[in-house]
Order: sequence, then structure tokens, then C-alpha cells
Amino acid sequence: MAEALNRPELTRAARPSTFEVNAVNERGESVATAIAGEYPLTLYLDKRELVTLMTLGAAPEYLAIGYLRNQRLLASVDQIAAVQVDWTTASVAVTTRSMADQGIALWDRAPPQAGLDARIGRRTVTTGCGQGTMFGDLMDSLDELRLPANASLSQEVLYTVMDNARRHESIYKVAGAVHGCALCSNAGNDRGEILQFVEDVGRHNAVDAIAGWMWLEGIDGADKIFYTTGRLTSEMVIKCAQIGVPFLLSRSGLTQMGFELAGRLGLTMIGRCQGKHYLLFSGGERFMALGTTSLA
Amino acid sequence: MAEALNRPELTRAARPSTFEVNAVNERGESVATAIAGEYPLTLYLDKRELVTLMTLGAAPEYLAIGYLRNQRLLASVDQIAAVQVDWTTASVAVTTRSMADQGIALWDRAPPQAGLDARIGRRTVTTGCGQGTMFGDLMDSLDELRLPANASLSQEVLYTVMDNARRHESIYKVAGAVHGCALCSNAGNDRGEILQFVEDVGRHNAVDAIAGWMWLEGIDGADKIFYTTGRLTSEMVIKCAQIGVPFLLSRSGLTQMGFELAGRLGLTMIGRCQGKHYLLFSGGERFMALGTTSLA
Repeated sequence: MAEALNRPELTRAARPSTFEVNAVNERGESVATAIAGEYPLTLYLDKRELVTLMTLGAAPEYLAIGYLRNQRLLASVDQIAAVQVDWTTASVAVTTRSMADQGIALWDRAPPQAGLDARIGRRTVTTGCGQGTMFGDLMDSLDELRLPANASLSQEVLYTVMDNARRHESIYKVAGAVHGCALCSNAGNDRGEILQFVEDVGRHNAVDAIAGWMWLEGIDGADKIFYTTGRLTSEMVIKCAQIGVPFLLSRSGLTQMGFELAGRLGLTMIGRCQGKHYLLFSGGERFMALGTTSLA
Repeated sequence: MAEALNRPELTRAARPSTFEVNAVNERGESVATAIAGEYPLTLYLDKRELVTLMTLGAAPEYLAIGYLRNQRLLASVDQIAAVQVDWTTASVAVTTRSMADQGIALWDRAPPQAGLDARIGRRTVTTGCGQGTMFGDLMDSLDELRLPANASLSQEVLYTVMDNARRHESIYKVAGAVHGCALCSNAGNDRGEILQFVEDVGRHNAVDAIAGWMWLEGIDGADKIFYTTGRLTSEMVIKCAQIGVPFLLSRSGLTQMGFELAGRLGLTMIGRCQGKHYLLFSGGERFMALGTTSLA
């Protein structure tokens, strides 16, 4: 994937991530406690209100772009002319080039843009909280997704990712109540290094923000590893496959549907990554354990 | 609140909650591992498709009723004639008496049912996963909510709730990847006892299922305590207040918006409940610490 030909105009409107409040502990002592920010952010696509996200606000521009990508409401980042976050109105306005250049809204035009109304019309409330929003036909289009068969992940690199994720500075360590996602390298001399790390009060926001950053920077997922602190539910598996990353790692567990989808998509999924422990649930043919060539 | 005058017809269609799959651990050993179920369930209200929930499927009828309650799509449980779950079509059909008796859909009728379209039309994607769905004007109507000022929670009962929640048999202990919610007594001789416990892959589903059960059984929230394993975000605080429970406890942390809303709603919110530790964040005037009358 090449970098966006015409880079969209972006605001840089991150919000403060933590706040200090006073709490009272079990001994009756007042304890200054850091808590995570949470802000409503209403997403407008060419002046059309799509949805209101509740977010930490650390990467609102990436979040907006990634949301449109993962919901398949835009086909290419090159369609985006501008992403403007305005916290005074709690809004992020995404303007497409079709609108910017011709004053024509995306959904007024011919396919593939047609059908946006139909996609927006159908909601799937997904598992992150059990009630996320996935528009339209994501589930129907899974079989179009192809992950690289020749990619491989070594146990050494897996441990490097786990160690980097554990040591990474985070809002979670300070305030809790957030989920983190990291995109890591699986190529060259920096295998296992964290390329991008995003936290959000919603773990789906965190993965969407990374998807948006990848789109914006023209970063391909084939030689990357995706790490999340969150559970491996159907939506996490789908989003990882949508951004083309063949390796999905989590500190947490998984659901049956996440497991089935990972198998169907050919995703290498590793859960319960803690300390030196992990459980490889699918895609073992891509995994190289210490002193072996493959577990497959 | 009195029990529903005409109890709706309900299916009892719980799904298996756990499945065993084989994983490979860090020593290359095959490990039989329990994972949590996750199923799509599409909610129809009088034959109108509202949303597809991803759920553990342990209490689908309560979930459907509680979702309609917490989204304020129905004003009373007495409007419900039947709740029918059919897993072969992954659907739950809620039939209202207006439809059942007169063949007239709720949203075709006069206020207060009017405006359903407008409410359904507006989505707020909330924080459980950052992308939940809250229809319409929930945030606007918060100031209508009143919680009992005279309720009080003692530190002894708090510890009883924490201990009962910790010891409770759970899918989480077996398979992880789920959140649990418990409604506990704060009256009579069984203060701190768990009255209802629901787990789901989505924590908002778990609280909705408890809200549905309460509606169905005519259970008032004023003399209850709500415990969740999940984070105290804006939506958890709003839903706890909507079911009239003045005490919200969590093993986890909170967000700034959850904190602000708890203060605005007069909710007593206690987070980080682990072992003998906790942090009281708001509503201390209702809390009775050991050997004191109040922390306020």
C-alpha cells in the first residue's frame, strides 16, 4: 500500500488522558486518584451525522479515519480531504474529496459509494461491550479477506512483543479503565518493536485508531503483529483481518466466535499472553516455536 | 414497582456458555482450554429489526427485555406480550400487547410511543467497547432520574458483596472473556447476598439482562446494590441509575465521565473493590464506614 497520494488535512486535537480526583479508601483516608478521560465525539461524514463515539480522545483523527475504514464506509484513505476535530462541539468532521471538490456527497454518487444508506441502516451490536456498532455487511464480506500464508512468527519475537507491551508506558498503569492496542514490527532488525500504541476507554476505538493511522501512513499489515490487552471476540478478529495483520496477540482470552472466525480467516491467534506463558489457538502453521520449524 | 400484571410469555432458550478447544502452550504442549460462547442475536420489536447483539446467550430473554428498557424503547414491561428466542434464526422477537391485541405497531401510535423512529435514528456509540449503541435521548433525560437519598450502605455489607462476588461460581473462572454483573440485597437479613448474577461477553449485555429480570419480576432498585466486574464508564453509571440502584460497585476503575455522571446523579460509586481494598469516589454521604456514621 502506498502512502496517501494527497495527504488529508488533519487537526491534532488530543485531549488530556487523565484527571486526578479524590477518593476515600477502606481506612477512611482521602486518596488522590488518577482516572481516564472519556469524551463523546460525534462523527460527521460530509456533514452527515454517523455516530457518537465515547473516547479517551488521545487520537481522535486516527479514530475517525479508522472507524470509517473498519466499517467500510470509505474505500480508500485517498477519498479523505480533511479530518477536523472540534472539542468545543464534541465533533469530528470528515470531508471527502468528492464533497470538497464537487460539493457532492459520497452517498449521492454511483457505486461503489452507493449503498451507504443501506450499510448504515443495519447495525450489529458487537461484543467489546456486547453492544458495539458494526455497520452493514461486514460479516458477509469476510471471505474476501486474505491473509499472507507465508508470514511467520517466531517464539522469540512473540516474547519480545509481550515484553515491550508489558514495559510500555501507558494510561492503564496510571488510571486503569482503558484498553491498549499495539502494532508491532515482524520484519527486519526491529522485529517485535512497537510501531504504534493507542489506548482508549473502548478497545474497539483503540484498534480503529491504529487502523486509521495505518491507512493514513500507507502501512501494510502483512509484516506486522497486532497486540491487544482486550478479549479476542469476533469483532477484534474481524478488524485484525481487515487491516491485513496475520498475527493477533492478546493478554486476555477469547470467545468461541472469535476462535471460529480466526480459523475461517486463517489468522494466527495467540491468547493469555502473560509473563512467559501463552496459548496458541489457531494458525500454528505460521508459528515457529523455539528449536522447531513449526507447530503445524 | 409491582410485578408485571400480565406476565409475558417467555422462551427459556439459554445457549451453552463454554466450549472446549485445544491450544498449544509455550512448551509445545496441547492444552484443552474452555472458551466462552458468543452468538449473534437479532432483536425484533413487533417484527421490526432493531439491532444485533453479540451475546454469551445465557439469558437472552432478560437481555432483550432489559435492552428495550435501558434504551427506553418501551415504557413498561406490561407492554410486552411475548419474548421468543429462536437460535436457529439467531433472533429474539419481542411482541407488544398493542401489536398482539390490535395488530398495531407501537411506533404507529400516539405518544408516549411516538418518537421511536427518532430515538432509534440517533446512535451513541458508548464506552464498554467504545462502540456500544445507546439510542436517542438517554443523555438528555438524565436529570429525570432520582435515586433514594435515604439509602445507606455499610462497610460490612460492602465487604459481604465483594466476598460473595469473588466466591461466586462463574464462566469467567472457567473461560475468562466475559464480564459479570450481580444485583445484591441491601435490606433485611440477607444484606450483601447476590439476588441475580449474569455474565456476558459484553458487560452492557450483562447489566441489561439484570435490568430485564428486574422489570419482569417487578423488583425495585432502591434497596439493592449493583456490582460489576467491568469498568465504571458513563454508560454503566447511566444504566445503574436507570434501574434505580443507588450503589454501584466495581472490581475495576472508572472514567472521568463516569465520575462526573455519578456526582450529577447522586450515585454512590465505589471502584477498585479487591480483597479488603476499595475506593469510594462519590456519594459518600450514603456510606457508613466501620465505626463511623458517615464518610461525608
